[in-house]
Formats: sequence, C-alpha cells, structure tokens
Amino acid sequence: MLKVGLLGAGRIGQVHAKSIAAHPESRLAAVSDVVMLAAEKLAAAYGAEARTTEAILADPSIDAVLIATSTDTHADLIEAATQAGKAVLCEKPVDLDLARAVRCQAAAARTGRPVMIGFNRRFDPNFASLKAAFDAGEIGKGELLSITSFDPAPPPASYVKVSGGLFRDMMIHDFDMACWIMGGAPEKVTAVGSCIVDPEIGRAGDVDTAVVTLHFADGRIAVIKNSRRAVYGYDQRIELLGSDGLLSAGNVLESTVSKATAAGVTGAKPEFFFLERYMRAYEAEWSAFVNAVLRGAPLPVSLQDGVNALALAEAATEAARTGQAVAVSRAALEVAA
Amino acid sequence: MLKVGLLGAGRIGQVHAKSIAAHPESRLAAVSDVVMLAAEKLAAAYGAEARTTEAILADPSIDAVLIATSTDTHADLIEAATQAGKAVLCEKPVDLDLARAVRCQAAAARTGRPVMIGFNRRFDPNFASLKAAFDAGEIGKGELLSITSFDPAPPPASYVKVSGGLFRDMMIHDFDMACWIMGGAPEKVTAVGSCIVDPEIGRAGDVDTAVVTLHFADGRIAVIKNSRRAVYGYDQRIELLGSDGLLSAGNVLESTVSKATAAGVTGAKPEFFFLERYMRAYEAEWSAFVNAVLRGAPLPVSLQDGVNALALAEAATEAARTGQAVAVSRAALEVAA
Amino acid sequence: MLKVGLLGAGRIGQVHAKSIAAHPESRLAAVSDVVMLAAEKLAAAYGAEARTTEAILADPSIDAVLIATSTDTHADLIEAATQAGKAVLCEKPVDLDLARAVRCQAAAARTGRPVMIGFNRRFDPNFASLKAAFDAGEIGKGELLSITSFDPAPPPASYVKVSGGLFRDMMIHDFDMACWIMGGAPEKVTAVGSCIVDPEIGRAGDVDTAVVTLHFADGRIAVIKNSRRAVYGYDQRIELLGSDGLLSAGNVLESTVSKATAAGVTGAKPEFFFLERYMRAYEAEWSAFVNAVLRGAPLPVSLQDGVNALALAEAATEAARTGQAVAVSRAALEVAA
Amino acid sequence: MLKVGLLGAGRIGQVHAKSIAAHPESRLAAVSDVVMLAAEKLAAAYGAEARTTEAILADPSIDAVLIATSTDTHADLIEAATQAGKAVLCEKPVDLDLARAVRCQAAAARTGRPVMIGFNRRFDPNFASLKAAFDAGEIGKGELLSITSFDPAPPPASYVKVSGGLFRDMMIHDFDMACWIMGGAPEKVTAVGSCIVDPEIGRAGDVDTAVVTLHFADGRIAVIKNSRRAVYGYDQRIELLGSDGLLSAGNVLESTVSKATAAGVTGAKPEFFFLERYMRAYEAEWSAFVNAVLRGAPLPVSLQDGVNALALAEAATEAARTGQAVAVSRAALEVAA
Repeated sequence: MLKVGLLGAGRIGQVHAKSIAAHPESRLAAVSDVVMLAAEKLAAAYGAEARTTEAILADPSIDAVLIATSTDTHADLIEAATQAGKAVLCEKPVDLDLARAVRCQAAAARTGRPVMIGFNRRFDPNFASLKAAFDAGEIGKGELLSITSFDPAPPPASYVKVSGGLFRDMMIHDFDMACWIMGGAPEKVTAVGSCIVDPEIGRAGDVDTAVVTLHFADGRIAVIKNSRRAVYGYDQRIELLGSDGLLSAGNVLESTVSKATAAGVTGAKPEFFFLERYMRAYEAEWSAFVNAVLRGAPLPVSLQDGVNALALAEAATEAARTGQAVAVSRAALEVAA
Repeated sequence: MLKVGLLGAGRIGQVHAKSIAAHPESRLAAVSDVVMLAAEKLAAAYGAEARTTEAILADPSIDAVLIATSTDTHADLIEAATQAGKAVLCEKPVDLDLARAVRCQAAAARTGRPVMIGFNRRFDPNFASLKAAFDAGEIGKGELLSITSFDPAPPPASYVKVSGGLFRDMMIHDFDMACWIMGGAPEKVTAVGSCIVDPEIGRAGDVDTAVVTLHFADGRIAVIKNSRRAVYGYDQRIELLGSDGLLSAGNVLESTVSKATAAGVTGAKPEFFFLERYMRAYEAEWSAFVNAVLRGAPLPVSLQDGVNALALAEAATEAARTGQAVAVSRAALEVAA
Repeated sequence: MLKVGLLGAGRIGQVHAKSIAAHPESRLAAVSDVVMLAAEKLAAAYGAEARTTEAILADPSIDAVLIATSTDTHADLIEAATQAGKAVLCEKPVDLDLARAVRCQAAAARTGRPVMIGFNRRFDPNFASLKAAFDAGEIGKGELLSITSFDPAPPPASYVKVSGGLFRDMMIHDFDMACWIMGGAPEKVTAVGSCIVDPEIGRAGDVDTAVVTLHFADGRIAVIKNSRRAVYGYDQRIELLGSDGLLSAGNVLESTVSKATAAGVTGAKPEFFFLERYMRAYEAEWSAFVNAVLRGAPLPVSLQDGVNALALAEAATEAARTGQAVAVSRAALEVAA
Repeated sequence: MLKVGLLGAGRIGQVHAKSIAAHPESRLAAVSDVVMLAAEKLAAAYGAEARTTEAILADPSIDAVLIATSTDTHADLIEAATQAGKAVLCEKPVDLDLARAVRCQAAAARTGRPVMIGFNRRFDPNFASLKAAFDAGEIGKGELLSITSFDPAPPPASYVKVSGGLFRDMMIHDFDMACWIMGGAPEKVTAVGSCIVDPEIGRAGDVDTAVVTLHFADGRIAVIKNSRRAVYGYDQRIELLGSDGLLSAGNVLESTVSKATAAGVTGAKPEFFFLERYMRAYEAEWSAFVNAVLRGAPLPVSLQDGVNALALAEAATEAARTGQAVAVSRAALEVAA
C-alpha cells in the first residue's frame, strides 16, 4: 500500500486524487494547496488530511508525492521531494527553461529516488496499443510518423505570454510521443508556424498553427501538426506508416451513438479536452507509477524524457523563427546517459 | 457522504467497491461475504471493515447497502435491508420466480425505502445518449427497435441448469432496455429459440440462440436477438428507427487503433464482456444511486422495473415453447401502479 | 459479342442500356417501349434502333433480350422470348401470382433457353463479398442472419394497391437474399406487420413496417426487417453470425467525406435509393449474364429462384395476417427440382 | 453528340474508351496506338475504327481527341491536335520539363481550342464533395491542409530513372489538389525526402518517402505526405482544418464488409490503385469534358493548371536537395494570366 501526498488540489489534482483513492494499492493520505480551503475540501472527499507541502515532505510515513502544482514550482518541488526521500510523479513540463530542467534532472538523479514525468499520452490505451503493435513488429520498420494534435480552443493571450510558446507548452507532448514511438530522438528539426487563429496570440509573440518535421538519422521522418483551435473538440491522432503496413490511433469519441436523418449521419465528437480524453490515461499512469514504486520496476517515463522533449521544443522554436533546419542539441539529450 | 455496506465481495462486488471508493460523496464502510477472507481482502484495499451481513444491516451508521450476492439471496436481502431502513442497490434479477419477485416488490414498497435494481445497461453512456436523443425528439416517433445482445462465450451447462433459462438470465437485460427505450411494456411477445451453439445447453433444457419480437399496442415493434456465443466479444448494440431518422449505439471497442496491412484493415474487437464494456456504466449507476439517495431524487430504475422484465421473460419462454404469440401479463406489470 | 434487344426504355431500362453499351462483349441493337419516343431517344444515345417488341423477338440476329417492362408483362414476355430462342434477363418479380410464376417457369424450362431473374442485390459487391467470405468458411457455420432493408420513402397508396403488398413487392428481395446466403429455403415463417408510417397504406390494405423470422430446419434463424420509410436514405445491410464470427455488409455512403464542427461529426448518408446503391450491381449483373450466355456458364440466378422468393412472400403474408407460424409450401419450392 | 478519337489504347486508354461509349452524348469513333493490334481490338469492342493518329487529327468529323499516350508525346500531340481544331483532354503531366510545358501552353492558347489536363483526382466524388463543402463555407476559413498520398508499391528503378522523380511524377497530383482546394498557389515550399523504401530508388537518384510543406502568403499551411509503398493499398486522403471545423475525405474501400472473429475485426482495404480508386473519377472527368465542349462551359482543369503543378514540383525538388525553403517561380505560375 502506497501512502501518497498530493501537492496541488486544482483541476488536475482532483483527477489524480480520484485515481489514488480508487487504486487498491494506494491511499491518499494528505493534500496541500496554496489555497488551503481547496486542499481541505479535496482531502475530506477521500478521507485524507489537508497539510502544508512542508509537512507532507517531512512526514516519513508518506511514500510518494504527486506534484500537480503550477509549472514554475515543478523543478524546485522535484528536488525537495527527492531529497526528502519520496518517490515522485510530476506533471509536465519539468520547467520552461532547458538549463533549469537539466540541473533538476542532475539533482534528482543524485538522490536515487524514482521521478516520473506525467506524459499522460503514453498511457492512453489507444496510443499504448499502437506502440505495442509497432514494437511487436506488426508493421515492420517504421518509416513515416504523423501526429495530429489540435486543442479545442485557444488559451487567452495572458496565458500564452507565460506559456513558453506553442512548442514548449503544447507540442512538447507530441515531441515526447514522437521520440517514444520512434525509439529515440531526431537529428534535425524543421518548423513552420503561423498565427492564423487568433491575432492576440501573434501579438503575444507566439504562433497558433504549426507543422514540425523531425528528421531521424536513418532517414525516417515524423510530422507533427498543431493547432490551437479545433472547434469540434480535442483532436489527438497518430499514424505510423511502416514497411509492412499502417497503424492508426483515432480519436476517442464522446459516445458510439450515431444519428441518421434527412440531413446526414451525425456521430459523436471527440472527447472535448484532455481531462475527458485522457481520464483513463491518468488512471493507467497512476497504476504504472504505483507498480514501479512498489515493485521496483523501471519507470515508464523518466525525468530525462522530460528534458529531451524540452530540447526538441527549443530546436523547433529556433527552426520556426529562422526557416532553417536546426540540429538537435546532443548535450541535453545525453545529459543522463 | 453516504456510508455504504457492500454485501458480496466477488467479481462484481469488487467493481462496485472501486466505484464507491472513487466517488467523492460515498465511502465504503463495510464488506461482507460468505467467504470471510474475500471480504477482508476487499475491505483492506479501501480502508473498510469486514463484517457479517447481519452486523452491517444492524449498524445504524450504514446508510445504504449494495447487494452483489448470488441471485437466490436477492429477494430476501432486499426485504431485510429495507426493513432495516437501508437504501438498496441490488444486482439484477430480483428473483427467477415472478411470484416471489412480486412479493418482494410489495414488501419493500411497504418500508418506503428506495430500492434500485442494477440494470447497468441503462447507465452505459452510449445507450443513455441514444435514449436522451430519442426522448428529445431527434428522430421523431419511434417505430422499430432492434437490440443485438450476444455474449462472447456460452456458460457451462451446470450454470445453464440453474440460470432460469436464456430469457430470464440473459435476455432480461434486453427486455428492460426495450421497455425503457420504448417507454412502456409491449402487449404481445413472439419468440423463436434454437440450440445451435452448444448441444449441452439443449440437453440442459435451454436454447442458446433466440429472436424475440415485442408488439406494442400502437403498432410499434421491437426485435431482440440473443446468442450465447459471439467469438469476437460482447456484442451490444441498439438501433431505433423513427419517423425522422435512425439512432444507433454501437459497440465500445478495446481501442481506436487500426492496422492496415496486405491482409486487410484490422480494428479492435468489442470490449470482451460486461465487466469491460459496462465499467463506466457501473460508475454512472453508482453515481445515480448516490445522487438519488442523498438528494431524494427519483430512482432511475425501480424494483417494479425488475418485476416487469421478469414478466416479459416468462412470456417469451412460453412463446418459444408453443410457437404462439403470448399476451404479456398485465397483473405483474401493474402490481405497483 | 452479344447483340441485345432491350424491352422497356424507362428508368431501369436506361440503366441497363448504359451497362450494355459499356460492356466490351455486348452491343445494344434495339430498344422497344410502349412509348415509342422513349425507345427512340434511348436507342439514339447508343447507336441502336427503336423497334417493336415483336420485331425484336422475331429478329434472329438478336441473341438476348433484357425485360425491363411493367411487372404484369414479365411472365408473358419470358415465355415469348424463350420460345423465340432468346436468352433472357428479366427484372424481378416473375409475377405477383405464385401459380402464374410456376407456369411461366415450366414453360420457359421446356425451351431450354437461359432465363435469369434480376435479383440485383446478389451482384452488389458488398453482399457478394459477404457471401464469398461465408462460403469460404471464414465465420464457420452460419447461425443467425439479419437483414435490414428500409426504403427511403413510402410509395403512393395508388402504387401500394397494385403492388401485391410489402411482402411480395419489397421483401421479396430479402427473401431471395436469405435463401441465397443460407443456401436453401426455410421451413417456417413468422411475421409481424404494422401500418405506422402512412395511414394511407393501411387503408390500401397493406403494412409499411414488418419483421419476418425464417426458421430453418436445422435450427438456424434469419430475421428480416422492412420499413417503407428511412428518411436518411436506402438502408441495406446484412449481418451473419456464425460459429467463428460475424460478417457484416454495411451501407454504401454517398461519399467518404466527414465534417467535424462544434455541432458534431457528420458523414454522408447512404446512397439514396436502388438506382444509386445498386448501380455497380446492375453492371455486375449484366456482366454475369453476358458471361453465362456467351460461355455457357450456369446462370447465377434462375427463374426458380424467382418462384421461391414468391412462395416465401405468400407464406409471410399469411403469417402476418394470422399471427401463426406458416409452413413454406414445398410444392412451389421444388417445382423445378 | 461528341465524336471522339482516342490516342493510345493502353490500360488508361481502355478506361477512357469505356467512359466514352457509356456516355449518352459521346461516341468513340476512332482509336490509334503505336501497336495497331491494340487499337484494332479496342475499336472493335465499341464499334469504332482503328486509324493512325494522323488520320484521326485530319478527320474533320472528329470533334475531340483524348490523349492517353506516353508522357513524352503529350506536348507535341496537344499542339498538333489544337492546331487541327480538336478539343483536347490530355492525361497528366503536360511534360516533365517546365519550359517545354510553358511553350505548349502558349502554342495551344493561340489556337483558342479547349485543352483540359486529366487531373483525375479533382473528379473523385469524395474530393469534389470536400471541395464543395469548403467552398460553401461549411468550415469557415481554411487553415491547415493535409494530403496523404501513398502508392501501393514502388515502381521499378528503370521507371524511376525516366519519371522525373517523385515530386514531378507522383506528388504532382497532390500539388494540383493543394492549389485547387486552397484556391491558389503557395509562396514558399519546404521539403524533406528520404530513400527508405527501396535502395534501388536511391541509386536511381530519387527519394521514395517525402514530406512537403507549402506556405501560403496569408499564413495558411499545407502538408503533403508521399510514400511509394503502402502495402495495404492506395492511400488517398485529405483533411482540411478550418476556423469552423474539419473536413476529411477518407479512402474508398474495396467493400463495406467487415468480419469480426476472435482475431479482431477486419474490414476491406482501400481500392488497390488508381484504376480502381479513380474509376468513377474518370467517368466524371469525361462527363465534365463533354459538357464543357458541347455547351461551351469553362473547362474544370486548364492547361495552365498543368504548368502550375509542374512549377511546384520543380521547387520541391530543389527544396529537398538543399534543405532550404524555396520560393515558387511566379513567372511560370502567371504565364497565362
């Protein structure tokens, strides 16, 4: 039984609290939040205690912490929690700054404690099934990977300004997926970015529509398409062409219901956004973490994976700015090797 | 916060335990089982106590019980629990004997306590979405309902012998769905049943493949198809033709992944069986029960609904035996009216 | 090269004229119609001559005739054309009267000329593919066949009055499909029919919604659902459950385009009606006929098949009227054996 | 009635011959081919005459010619036929050399005769439906276009050597589609090409897998993915993300049949290659040409469209070679303006 402290009682913290409570091998022991009332309410729902983050980290009966706080606190909390001996599951990204993420990685590595980054999409049953089929050789050698990843609606410009930009904030998930599926990092990155969805995003210095091409050393290619707006819902699809076939993972729809009328045949939309689409992924992510910590199994996502995705985001940002292919920094990618 | 006693720690009891623990407004307080070790193990996973059924019913701090025991105990436990003042959620069927179910209904009604029967399919998000679209008038007047309901594999003959037969054991769910969707019970039932899947089932006096047609007084028609064996998984689909269109609820697939190779394009199978397909339905069912009990809302499924479905099963059994259309007993259907 | 006389220049005659002209082994030589202007127009489009039916039948250079005239002339024209030595492809049905159809069958048989009945659905590439997969053993033994067959809109009551009724006019196609797929005729028929689409149809003495169950001697079951109105288009689907799986043939849609918007995901409707849905089937039907006649191959649909379907329609009409299971006349089914 | 001379009796010529014969407003009058026996056989099947190309061009009763000969003869035959006063439908490409194509365009323009290039995909009912829905404003402003275009199997290296390369030979169709859908030509092109399918193609100096990004002046983006090998068949799909939704045109499958077994649910593959997938497109292309010529309507595809696609192919070839974004030659694009 894993006793867990949850740092952050916001929207994503509530999702994790439910997974922790529902899992027969974990128990939610304590919750902290900058808003104490939020921590208290969430703790009450699952028979846990509301405490300060410091108290949670200092409590030797707490085995693990789940960091679901704001991005700018991630690196500090990872370092503090690992130094306190906790196993850590931290929401992505490690940090918006590559150098800070690299330092955090090094610091955490010195403690020897397990740190997993919440790249939730790896635990989506559909993407995991695609990856498993590919790894089992069902379509031979991978050649051309396509990732479609559209958000349902653009964030406010105020968010965009502090987000680190589309490549660090949004496409970082897709960079991780591409490396995970292809089994390594690309050599070069080319990128095109436009602001055609919302002029406010352009005024905030960012793009809202982008296509990035990843060139792998052996000639394989990956394409990532991002848009901040798909009015029909969260569009999350992957296709992988291989020497023996094509694997596709489609959207998860709100239902299997279709309606045929004189106007056409209408089906359900994709699940609206990440909380809906990846609800099962969050449960599976938590199960994988519990299993790894309780049984000493390897973590399915490492802190290094979080650093790697950030390195690709930096390269893509540069490529979109200059219009030139950009080589991916080997230094960052190999820091933990 | 609803404090809950769970009667039965078997496969379906474990599913319910997880729903109870994950719900922010309910807590699993106690578990009983004829195998005490099973009760203890399940209780431990969610911070509950293992107790006897009698102790649970006698404990005034327990607000509700969930009955997940064997069918032959359902009617007795419903009566005992309601007399002990508990709100009850009981797995289907009420009983295999219509007369016993009618008596149970009457006894429970006298206590005034809420009793909900676990017709889980009503809470399947897909079927619920179809029902909501129909009730909203999206396809006009309903005319022809089709229910496909195939199990992945036939049960052993030993089970068949005590099951009450295909119509009471398996098609009872579909009878409830038909009445629920069409908004009332049919006037007549015709049925065809064959034993073509497994001769052992025939030797046990039952059929394994059946088609039942329900005739409603106003001319509407419903068709239910059952087979004990669909080797590709649990096939659970509904189609409703109306004056303005067709609503269809398809199977829930194991994933959205498809694989295109020289051999064809292969997609996932339907979720294997009821525990997989209806996992989300069990959660929604529990939520609906909690909500109804805590807020005094009407129960979405009544004990009378359980009696009605059983009355249709009896009529279908007779129709298949004689080859004649059989009028549905109004007495049973109106017992609680 | 097959020289062909086309009898009937109406809507379906025009479809056949195009198939005849496009086929590299057949040539449209002559066209007749009760409206001579229609014959002339159609003949001109394909370099053929407009003539009387009598002249066409008397011309020894004409190898084959395609009968696309009104139903009440079919039996007479089949008899006259075969006596004139022509190979015949005749639209369904042979006749609305079973006894007349049986006599026609006998008369044509005496000439030894090939007569094929235009059960076009057998040539639909989808149904043909389902049948081929089943015959190849891909789902083992067939157990439960379901045919959905809905027209887009009800015909006028004036048509209904002379149509022979839903079972002879509309479901006759489905009876042929059921016998073709299951490899023989059923033993008994049960039927339910309602008039719920259009009261005028009821006043004309017919039903507009019907469910028929076919019981085969070995326990296999087939269900046919008909409605005169599916506002979303021509709904033509088949499912066959077997011991090793399920084969399904879905609708052919107007396009593969889908549109995802805030309102949902909308796809194309089924092809509107038989001319659209079965256009490719008409071409394949013609090809099969040409091939059989030129090369002496067995006809894929016989005149006896036309008689058999009519016998089932008679049985279903009786079953719907009486509410009793009706045994299928063996006499009609075996007339040509 | 349009009297037509067909130049070329090969595989694609046979397809066109059938369309010409089946169309009620056109008649196949003559066929030529470098192999006279092929011309004779094809002519005989449709009641036409086999002649030399010169005789066909010199015959004033011939209204139009369809050029289905080898690529290196296209430009010469377009010039000769227009000078002889014929209306022309010519298979793509105009020529492999941009300068030659531009000269041909100018020469044909001087005759004033209509010349249509056979970009058959514009007539695919699915792509045409997507285009119509987009033009009708159904998804608002177009933002991000994705074209997937994979051949089933790589051509032999001998063909690759004379093909002009993947961008001129294969992706030229996709360049035309992108310009057609987006309503104009892009400003810049970036490209990545790899040889990972067949090393022989690399030795022949070409790539077999490529991703091209088209940047439009207003920020819109198009991505084209090509592979010479998709073992599951011809993969031809388009997606267009707009401000109000997404339009997708999927593959046309060999049938609507699916098979569910213990091994999974298997559906049909995409139509194997262009002759299967685009058979209906060829018919519609011919109808559009007949209609334009007989009624003086504007041609749906112009000779200039053929030149434009070639200009994009040249730019992409350069971009893939250098790794730099390449501006598209305005000169070529505006030659006919």
